[in-house]
Amino acid sequence: MVPASTQFPFGFTAHCNGTFGYEKLEFLSSNSFHQLEISRIKFCPSSVPKTTPKPALVSRICSLPDFDDFFWEKTPTPMLDAIENPICLKNFTLKELKQLADEIRSELSSIMPKTQKSFKASLAVVELTVALHHVFHAPVDKILWDVGEQTFAHKILTGRRSLIHTLRQKDGISGYTSRSESEFDPFSAGHGCNSISAGLGMAIARDIKGKRERIVTIIGNGTTMAGQVYEAMSNAGYLDSNMIVILNDSRHSLHPKIEEGPKTSINALSSTLSRLQSSKSFRRLREVAKGVTKRIGKGMHEWAAKVDEYARGLIGPAGSTLFEELGLYYIGPVDGHNIEDLICVLQQVASLDSMGPVLVHVITEENRGTLNNQKSEITVKQLEGSSNSDSLLFNNNSRTYSDCLVEALVMEAEKDKDIVLVHAGMEMDPSLQLFQEKFPEKYFDVGMAEQHAVTFSAGLSCGGLKPFCIIPSAFLQRAYDQVIQDVDQQRIPVRFVITSAGLVGSDGPTQCGAFDITFMSCLPNMIVMAPSDEDELVHMVATAAQIDDRPVCFRYPRGAIVRTDYPMVSGIPIEQIGKGKVLVEGKDIALLGYGAMVQNCLKARALLSKLGVEVTVADARFCKPLDIKLLRELCQNHAFLVTVEEGSIGGFGSHVSQFIALDGQLDGRIKWRPIVLPNNYIEHASPTEQLSFAGLTGHHIAATALSLLGRTREALLLMC
Amino acid sequence: MVPASTQFPFGFTAHCNGTFGYEKLEFLSSNSFHQLEISRIKFCPSSVPKTTPKPALVSRICSLPDFDDFFWEKTPTPMLDAIENPICLKNFTLKELKQLADEIRSELSSIMPKTQKSFKASLAVVELTVALHHVFHAPVDKILWDVGEQTFAHKILTGRRSLIHTLRQKDGISGYTSRSESEFDPFSAGHGCNSISAGLGMAIARDIKGKRERIVTIIGNGTTMAGQVYEAMSNAGYLDSNMIVILNDSRHSLHPKIEEGPKTSINALSSTLSRLQSSKSFRRLREVAKGVTKRIGKGMHEWAAKVDEYARGLIGPAGSTLFEELGLYYIGPVDGHNIEDLICVLQQVASLDSMGPVLVHVITEENRGTLNNQKSEITVKQLEGSSNSDSLLFNNNSRTYSDCLVEALVMEAEKDKDIVLVHAGMEMDPSLQLFQEKFPEKYFDVGMAEQHAVTFSAGLSCGGLKPFCIIPSAFLQRAYDQVIQDVDQQRIPVRFVITSAGLVGSDGPTQCGAFDITFMSCLPNMIVMAPSDEDELVHMVATAAQIDDRPVCFRYPRGAIVRTDYPMVSGIPIEQIGKGKVLVEGKDIALLGYGAMVQNCLKARALLSKLGVEVTVADARFCKPLDIKLLRELCQNHAFLVTVEEGSIGGFGSHVSQFIALDGQLDGRIKWRPIVLPNNYIEHASPTEQLSFAGLTGHHIAATALSLLGRTREALLLMC
Repeated sequence: MVPASTQFPFGFTAHCNGTFGYEKLEFLSSNSFHQLEISRIKFCPSSVPKTTPKPALVSRICSLPDFDDFFWEKTPTPMLDAIENPICLKNFTLKELKQLADEIRSELSSIMPKTQKSFKASLAVVELTVALHHVFHAPVDKILWDVGEQTFAHKILTGRRSLIHTLRQKDGISGYTSRSESEFDPFSAGHGCNSISAGLGMAIARDIKGKRERIVTIIGNGTTMAGQVYEAMSNAGYLDSNMIVILNDSRHSLHPKIEEGPKTSINALSSTLSRLQSSKSFRRLREVAKGVTKRIGKGMHEWAAKVDEYARGLIGPAGSTLFEELGLYYIGPVDGHNIEDLICVLQQVASLDSMGPVLVHVITEENRGTLNNQKSEITVKQLEGSSNSDSLLFNNNSRTYSDCLVEALVMEAEKDKDIVLVHAGMEMDPSLQLFQEKFPEKYFDVGMAEQHAVTFSAGLSCGGLKPFCIIPSAFLQRAYDQVIQDVDQQRIPVRFVITSAGLVGSDGPTQCGAFDITFMSCLPNMIVMAPSDEDELVHMVATAAQIDDRPVCFRYPRGAIVRTDYPMVSGIPIEQIGKGKVLVEGKDIALLGYGAMVQNCLKARALLSKLGVEVTVADARFCKPLDIKLLRELCQNHAFLVTVEEGSIGGFGSHVSQFIALDGQLDGRIKWRPIVLPNNYIEHASPTEQLSFAGLTGHHIAATALSLLGRTREALLLMC
Repeated sequence: MVPASTQFPFGFTAHCNGTFGYEKLEFLSSNSFHQLEISRIKFCPSSVPKTTPKPALVSRICSLPDFDDFFWEKTPTPMLDAIENPICLKNFTLKELKQLADEIRSELSSIMPKTQKSFKASLAVVELTVALHHVFHAPVDKILWDVGEQTFAHKILTGRRSLIHTLRQKDGISGYTSRSESEFDPFSAGHGCNSISAGLGMAIARDIKGKRERIVTIIGNGTTMAGQVYEAMSNAGYLDSNMIVILNDSRHSLHPKIEEGPKTSINALSSTLSRLQSSKSFRRLREVAKGVTKRIGKGMHEWAAKVDEYARGLIGPAGSTLFEELGLYYIGPVDGHNIEDLICVLQQVASLDSMGPVLVHVITEENRGTLNNQKSEITVKQLEGSSNSDSLLFNNNSRTYSDCLVEALVMEAEKDKDIVLVHAGMEMDPSLQLFQEKFPEKYFDVGMAEQHAVTFSAGLSCGGLKPFCIIPSAFLQRAYDQVIQDVDQQRIPVRFVITSAGLVGSDGPTQCGAFDITFMSCLPNMIVMAPSDEDELVHMVATAAQIDDRPVCFRYPRGAIVRTDYPMVSGIPIEQIGKGKVLVEGKDIALLGYGAMVQNCLKARALLSKLGVEVTVADARFCKPLDIKLLRELCQNHAFLVTVEEGSIGGFGSHVSQFIALDGQLDGRIKWRPIVLPNNYIEHASPTEQLSFAGLTGHHIAATALSLLGRTREALLLMC
């Protein structure tokens, strides 16, 4: 089915097809920032919404969307409308705060379908966000989130409500916290796991400067997989500066993969316990005890600390002593949807001086306030899978590069029983489920633990297996040392699959994979390649499976593949490592593309051929080793060589220039021009817009070629 | 005092000066690998060696060197001489194993002064090493160390005894474990913290392949700072594969900085406890209990696990429950110098099937078996400080780049109260003590937690301070994502001081800083610079202190500065960011050096001027932003431009080539040649030897220039 797309004023687009049964959409929008009337969608309910057993929630849930028909009436938001600044929350009563939370949840739910990204993480922390802004004085007090998806309620409360519909769109607000966007975002977060480190830095700076603001950092479950969090907590425990770490625990386990594990029950006891732990007298008692035992002697001190720790540990949840061991005072668990408890605990913690770092364990539910979660999940997955190809939204026929990769990996794994998969990153690519289902014992998702993932892959390889290590480009940065030390230097055959390479649309610079060509191709033993289309991807999987004497990596972009409804080819290893190929021959100028940019070179060729320019387009396939023969031929048969890549300076173009310089080809024989990503971070926008900003579209490449040929006027016309 | 240096046959050198009172040195050496007679040094004791109160140690300590006079008689080593393969240890009695450990300690102590590197870490694990090789069957069983300094006893026992005197020398054995060196090194280690990840990979591969070998990984104290260890332990706990993690705890604290903390007492109780914990019946009981509670219900299961955990936790040392929380079964503490206990516990652990990951906490003493530690420390520091300049050994007048840096930082910090220092890496550079002493509250050494160090610095900067973040080049790789996400993308002014940039002599490829120019200069907001000498370093410190709107980094090499006994200049910020300078003018060829390589360009110029070639030498100072004006001038006034840097492809040369290509300068105007580090890892050797392998000496640069000018014969003569 071909999707229907409608462009509305004020920059949002509605995509409809029959699957979800949209019938009627009405948009009323205002872009004014301080006028708090925001865009609203009116839906006529065509079925009675489901109710949950909890009676207190009925009024709220009645106003939520039902995905079955997607029509509902948005409830009024009087409390939310009254907030111009989070300072307003100070005067709210508990009842008003509760109502405010309900209104925010309702508002977030109404935005959900529009901005094409799961709001679940933000829905889970609505009460926490309200409680934080009630207790603390942002922006003087610093509230640091470390996962973008959790911050939408925070954004709504901090002056960005009227812009929330522009989320992740060009010139709209970011999907992450951003220092440049708001003074209420004291630190930018996107990759997760940085908030404690940054918060500790701010706490130490505050101490040195003699200031008194409070520092609150929030970490999520997934984040507790990441090594940096432990580094930061250990250092926070050692430096003993006042700061509050909130563990937003929506999975009830330190290991998010253990979702089936026992749930911590939040009952009256734990509520009382948390309040006791956080009470001034309890803390003071502990301080006094600390001081006394310090004077008594070290052995005693240790025992006292231990008794305190374990006494609380035994009635606390799993994980509590872990934080105590790292030097953080543990308080919890606190019901993250009970505003009263949250405020009580946070106020106690905020009012204490000289307490050192405190960890407040807050239990939240991601599915709080969402109905028909299963359907919602499907929608989100479909949306994420195709998030890079605006026009293909809701089109079930579209296949992504990731789909192709996984199908190719399954084919290889069926042939070779040694092939295993290691995946790391913020979230698992839904496509990988296919492999996981087929080979559950050969699939390892280690979560946000990229460093471990790389060395673990090296270990698997040493043990005689053939690991493919799948990590998004921006997250491979986190394991760079391991790639060098534990893989490349030891020449261990690990096959790196670098996903989300290049620009990533609405995820903006945070997830952009700009640097991988540069930082991988400088490594001596690494084979570095990139497929120009889905067939090449399949062949490169086969090639990588075959290379067993050294590490190899290949990158591919996010989003849909070039062709749809195309039969899957069978992977054939590339005949020779480092072999590129000429796709089209012409005499005037040579375009040498790397990876997906080969497609844009072909587009440029089409434009140029209309203008009578004859262009050679070659697919380099390898950045390392380079196809020396191909390069010499291109240099000898053309006056101009343009290298094109969706990556930063220092990558493919640099390798080409170094070779042709040393080979003497640059000594007057050929004129070389590199096209790379520009020297700036490209903000979130649609993929096409981003490519245009980056100067990497077919039009840009063609214009560069025309300029080189001295046809500047035509070049300018092409860009109009 | 000028040091006297004597070259002996078989590749070792003795450096003498009066300070240590050498009087007589006799060398008897054999290089044969399997003949276990090794090089010996005979010393006549000129003073009675000191004895310790422990009577059992007297016989051993009598044979140890006394640094006061440095003369001793090496004791015979009959047990050690009998070992051709670690399999021999299997048949040794406990008494023989103890004697073997004593002999190894004696042997290591005798080597200590020769190889110029602390053996303390290896001395601490002699008994552990002996016990491991007695209980396990290497190389079938895999023993993975993660700190090179701990492995010398392991190397002696695994066929490398006769080569141990070649440690860290050209063509000698590596200072780290190395897969290419021995089958007994199943994984190469150097940066620390990778052993659990790699071991887990091997364990999983073993399970998949249906094999049965045991996997033992050893981690040190410093390593427990590093985030990857937590990632790996958490994943090991989750995957629940059989493996043994040994925590070699020589500081009695999880945070190595807390050295003054309470020491864990190792008494009869803990010995019995560890034996009980590791006993089959105890483990079986636990397995049964696990199974039962799993069937009973989840809540119960959790409680049972907790009671087991805490019951042991309360009588265990600090940190024990941390490992249990992460999913490892904790056993300990075990006295790391009691071979009997070690063997008992390891045998129990090794004999168990289906137990999941186990952590054995072993307490060792780094100073075990060394006398006059204070003096030893001083020697080690002096040696380390000047390890990169062979001829300056023992010369107290030599100053290193690090000394200059610290003096410059102190000067800046005296002027600007906002300046703070953050240091990360394996060990603190001794020079930094000066800053720490002057500004203890402004100095933060976070240990092996580079990721945290970078984000923490960003936080400090956000809090209004001016952080300098000091990390060796090879370890900055570990924080690359944080440099990008938490600093560069947010354009936060953090000043990165990249130490040990370029080749690092005897530390080989493990610590080599080859890639930093490449991976830092591709970042959009980063200012990237490198001083060509110590004065420039001081000015760059002042420049970095002044830049307060974006991040900046500068790199400098290990080792001694160009001039000695030179008065410290006062730091003056460089007049304009991105401004290079011409040092010498000539018409034939332009050499554009980056960083310390400017000195080698000057050496090349001296050689070339003797041959009548007139050379321009320019100091680029900045890789980013480039000095466009300088580049254009060099291109316009010369036929050849040679860029020279001690870094990989993709760095300075690539930035120059991209600019001159886009500027049209490469279109026949100038011939450009890049000189960079070659496309391979350069093994440990002296710095001079390494530079020669890399083709970066003055002679190499001059030869390149001569070749370009068509004077190939003279170029060849120059290299003879």
